[in-house]
Amino acid sequence: MKDRGHVSTTQTLDLNDAGKIIDAGIAEAERIGNPSNIAGVDAGGCLLAFARMDDAWRGSVDIAISKAWTARAFDVETKALAKLAQPGADFYGIHASNDGKVMIFAGGVPIKEGETVIGAVGVSGGTGKQDQGVAEAAAQAFARG
Amino acid sequence: MKDRGHVSTTQTLDLNDAGKIIDAGIAEAERIGNPSNIAGVDAGGCLLAFARMDDAWRGSVDIAISKAWTARAFDVETKALAKLAQPGADFYGIHASNDGKVMIFAGGVPIKEGETVIGAVGVSGGTGKQDQGVAEAAAQAFARG
Amino acid sequence: MKDRGHVSTTQTLDLNDAGKIIDAGIAEAERIGNPSNIAGVDAGGCLLAFARMDDAWRGSVDIAISKAWTARAFDVETKALAKLAQPGADFYGIHASNDGKVMIFAGGVPIKEGETVIGAVGVSGGTGKQDQGVAEAAAQAFARG
Amino acid sequence: MKDRGHVSTTQTLDLNDAGKIIDAGIAEAERIGNPSNIAGVDAGGCLLAFARMDDAWRGSVDIAISKAWTARAFDVETKALAKLAQPGADFYGIHASNDGKVMIFAGGVPIKEGETVIGAVGVSGGTGKQDQGVAEAAAQAFARG
Repeated sequence: MKDRGHVSTTQTLDLNDAGKIIDAGIAEAERIGNPSNIAGVDAGGCLLAFARMDDAWRGSVDIAISKAWTARAFDVETKALAKLAQPGADFYGIHASNDGKVMIFAGGVPIKEGETVIGAVGVSGGTGKQDQGVAEAAAQAFARG
Repeated sequence: MKDRGHVSTTQTLDLNDAGKIIDAGIAEAERIGNPSNIAGVDAGGCLLAFARMDDAWRGSVDIAISKAWTARAFDVETKALAKLAQPGADFYGIHASNDGKVMIFAGGVPIKEGETVIGAVGVSGGTGKQDQGVAEAAAQAFARG
Repeated sequence: MKDRGHVSTTQTLDLNDAGKIIDAGIAEAERIGNPSNIAGVDAGGCLLAFARMDDAWRGSVDIAISKAWTARAFDVETKALAKLAQPGADFYGIHASNDGKVMIFAGGVPIKEGETVIGAVGVSGGTGKQDQGVAEAAAQAFARG
Repeated sequence: MKDRGHVSTTQTLDLNDAGKIIDAGIAEAERIGNPSNIAGVDAGGCLLAFARMDDAWRGSVDIAISKAWTARAFDVETKALAKLAQPGADFYGIHASNDGKVMIFAGGVPIKEGETVIGAVGVSGGTGKQDQGVAEAAAQAFARG
């Protein structure tokens, strides 16, 4: 096969990465005593792995997956997007786009390799602070490699 | 708490069970060389755990989750539902119900404790025969305990 | 064909126009260093052409197309609609209409021939100011002919 | 930045590729005299570029984009999927999945680099044979480099 040179390449999380990320999220959720839904998506925003801990909210399955998607779709923490989506701010109303998949509260965190976003994690099941903490712990597990 | 007697109880898969089921499905999918999407749902039909193996079809994320839901929603293998949903058969058109979540081809298998359905597994990523084989291997891992 | 007089005519952008508009938008987005999604719609609000620049947000595909649609659907810049859609203002809640297609932040600009709106351009991928600037540059390319 | 080695990479179409693919599709559609909608998606199934030729069906905007998505989502020509989705076949009912984005008639063609699917093209606006011919001409333009 000849290398035509012009084909772009992208880095992405794979299932093995996502498994480690979710395991780290579960450990943190257990530590703080808040059962969570945790989702990992690849560089294309597509779901790689998901876990709903026992007693975690059922309505948060969709939210966790959507937070992960949002964090990759806009290469931003959903916590930061929350501020930008308030009335009067630049992205007010963005939550109505993309068939309602855009989550504008804390708990979605991009995963980076250097400066490149290669996927994201989304957590839902508690307060914004709890979800954010679990998502950050999950993301840091990947950063440590 | 006294046992009031009249309160119903439901047996259900939990996250730990779902993890074992998915791991068994992944092992079988690797054995037959067909990357798969594998989903496990609890007795309420709600997603517990999910994995998309590397190179598995992206369009099958939704399908695997929906097959698992369908298998519990109607307490039936989706393979059996396929026959009932053909033109002229009793359930023709059922795939248009429930916002398109009803999958009418092989790969969704209920998980039972004795005679009671306590959850289900859904597999998508190959032919009907491949998906069914992976789903059965996953379900049997639970049956063996 | 004789001119029957009573048959209405509509002026509209065509694909050739939309291509020029998008190219001008890409040039401006490159100039300011902000990869963007750019969409052009005709007088009926129907998508004519679209481009997602490399590294532009994936979540903005839908938003760019919806901004263009909104600008034609209400013959207004989405930047102006933003003010009208704030809590307490006349159109608060409008973003929930039309299946979530109404975008109420900057980046959608109607294209006019004289006083007649004949289509629109929608841009998404940056701040409101960035998106508005790219959309205006795109629209002006058409105005210059 | 240290290379941790375990980060997966994928090849993907970019906007420049998609532009060439669509131009080739337009040329073929003009040659056969059938105005078409033509869409190109990247390796993640996300829209890169789109064109609706003048007088092409408005209802085919969504179909062209969905055909391109489907061809990547299942790494298959939608023409082949058509056979597999007939009553009695393995994937009967698949068109109800993925919120109706799965198109099961001709006109969606994966784009490959060697054996790897790196995106897809979707065409809608005519008969299955016409759409397939335009999509193949578009895909071949990329294969020629």
